[in-house]
Amino acid sequence: MAAAAQTAFADGERPISELLLEPSADILQHAGDTPIDCVLVSTNDTARYLAAVLSELCGVTPRISGTMESMCSSGGAALITAYSYVRSGLARTVLVAGAENPGSPGSVLDWDVSRGQFQSPIYWGSILTKSYMRRYGVSREDLAAVAAKNRSQAQDNPHSLHGSPCTISDVLASPQVTEDLNLLDCSQLCSGSAAVLVADDATCRRITDTPVWIRGLSQYTASAGFGAGGSYHQIVSAGEAARAAYAMAGISAGMIDVAEVHDAFSVCEPMALESLGMAQPGRGAGLSGELYGTGSRRVNPRGGILGAGHPLGATGLAQAAEVFAQLRGEAGRRQVENARTGVIQGMSAAGTGSVVVVMES
Amino acid sequence: MAAAAQTAFADGERPISELLLEPSADILQHAGDTPIDCVLVSTNDTARYLAAVLSELCGVTPRISGTMESMCSSGGAALITAYSYVRSGLARTVLVAGAENPGSPGSVLDWDVSRGQFQSPIYWGSILTKSYMRRYGVSREDLAAVAAKNRSQAQDNPHSLHGSPCTISDVLASPQVTEDLNLLDCSQLCSGSAAVLVADDATCRRITDTPVWIRGLSQYTASAGFGAGGSYHQIVSAGEAARAAYAMAGISAGMIDVAEVHDAFSVCEPMALESLGMAQPGRGAGLSGELYGTGSRRVNPRGGILGAGHPLGATGLAQAAEVFAQLRGEAGRRQVENARTGVIQGMSAAGTGSVVVVMES
Repeated sequence: MAAAAQTAFADGERPISELLLEPSADILQHAGDTPIDCVLVSTNDTARYLAAVLSELCGVTPRISGTMESMCSSGGAALITAYSYVRSGLARTVLVAGAENPGSPGSVLDWDVSRGQFQSPIYWGSILTKSYMRRYGVSREDLAAVAAKNRSQAQDNPHSLHGSPCTISDVLASPQVTEDLNLLDCSQLCSGSAAVLVADDATCRRITDTPVWIRGLSQYTASAGFGAGGSYHQIVSAGEAARAAYAMAGISAGMIDVAEVHDAFSVCEPMALESLGMAQPGRGAGLSGELYGTGSRRVNPRGGILGAGHPLGATGLAQAAEVFAQLRGEAGRRQVENARTGVIQGMSAAGTGSVVVVMES
Repeated sequence: MAAAAQTAFADGERPISELLLEPSADILQHAGDTPIDCVLVSTNDTARYLAAVLSELCGVTPRISGTMESMCSSGGAALITAYSYVRSGLARTVLVAGAENPGSPGSVLDWDVSRGQFQSPIYWGSILTKSYMRRYGVSREDLAAVAAKNRSQAQDNPHSLHGSPCTISDVLASPQVTEDLNLLDCSQLCSGSAAVLVADDATCRRITDTPVWIRGLSQYTASAGFGAGGSYHQIVSAGEAARAAYAMAGISAGMIDVAEVHDAFSVCEPMALESLGMAQPGRGAGLSGELYGTGSRRVNPRGGILGAGHPLGATGLAQAAEVFAQLRGEAGRRQVENARTGVIQGMSAAGTGSVVVVMES
């Protein structure tokens, strides 16, 4: 990975092509005279041919272009695809740009009738929360601490949606949306975009003195329907994707210095950490809480999705941009000391599918 | 490529998941106990997470999945992506399934304001027709002959939308839709689906005694807006994609035994053939007419888009399925004698982007 950029995450709609162009223009500046072989867009937006639109706006004529969609983990799926274009020899450089607006159709999966009348993700977030708390005896305070940590960490992220921190008490005092969730336990859809440049080794070294290497990646789709998964206290797909990605990278979970995981709801962060092997079952909330308590920012340093906001198609690429910055030592006040190995985890549709990418400096 | 299948192209809407499943189930039968590593969907449909939905319906848990969209050439873009997953070593098998309904949003590109008030493809089809006829002194009859040939060839394709042939006179007597186009010069959106199994060499040989090899492929995106192209008598993107694909495959245009090209309108077939180097400039309509006259079916043997119908996301994969059958000698009454080298060409949005794939038996 030779470059990364993102735009501010914000309320309100912006033209999708404008969102895609903004970080892409940054990437092109970094790339200089390096030709862009492929343009890959990650979004749930219903506008068609966006990779060609972005290409024309950027003034490039790519050899491969298209839009990749996999709901909330579209960015991760696009990263895997970009990697394969380069690794297969079809391309030297792939511009991957993700963007979304708050009204995106990617937040609801009509097909999944196992959710009954409940289309909104709030309901699976609520079911996972109840199930996880029961199984491990985790308290509402433990989970509220995740939201408080991420909202606070987001204050050092100039691109984050939320401009103010919150405490555990704030989370618990925020409007109750279901029996299990308060408003501040839930991430918020927003507008935003992010982009990265995936390139072969020689091109990376030519563009920057401090490239970041994609060492391992995998995706895993267990099902599309929430009811087909059968496990409500872990993210099975994240575990499977992590196993394959770690094997490819030759790392173990203990080697991870920094991780951006998919905290769509408070409970998702500990569940992800446990599925990624970074915490013992039922201990993920404690782990992230403890890390926050000690001032470490190893988990979701940019504020995660709870803190930074959730522009679906951009989220995976914003995670990648954060780990890219961390591994280059360019994360400013968010910097994790001596970060050498980073991981991103994105998931879709109640965790029925996940993407895990291992990056190293 | 180890297997290919398609469903009947027809009027009327069908659930997109049902369309995707039908040819995919055929592919899985061919694959037997071979694990499916990736599931890639090609469509312009606005339903989200379709690759996961298809995976669940098929009972597979892929390591990579997602939807690829590039308007009318989504199928070609998905084929390139599937090839890269295999070539990069990320996968041994990729199920690629394309489907569409007649009401798909993929037929109109709102972004392209260079078309003025004319959203419908009819207008760019009309402009290309006028420009091509003027430049080369080609007659309406010459172009109507393309439609007549393809409608007639489609009668030997059991999956084609149109159940009756037509003559040059029929085309010219059909309702006039613009100054340059009669109704039978225009392809028709429809419902339909097609799927292929892309696999590594060893897996292909294990599944079938007569695999078909992807020898070269490329895509090229010149622009997104019709007005940005600047050339209305050739498909610049097809020429660029063909050049790269032929070089990769080590072939020249003269070696092509059978070709499925993107005849969205009558004029598109000669323009494509010329851009692919298979006919001299201005001679493509004569070439395809002549081939039809002599009983050869080298160009669009399944009836092309004019004859078989145009379910956007399925079209590129139906082209691939046809060439797959031709190169295996399994095309029945459509069979081109001794076909060893085949090409498919798909294009999007007035030819602003094209995909070319070279296949060999």
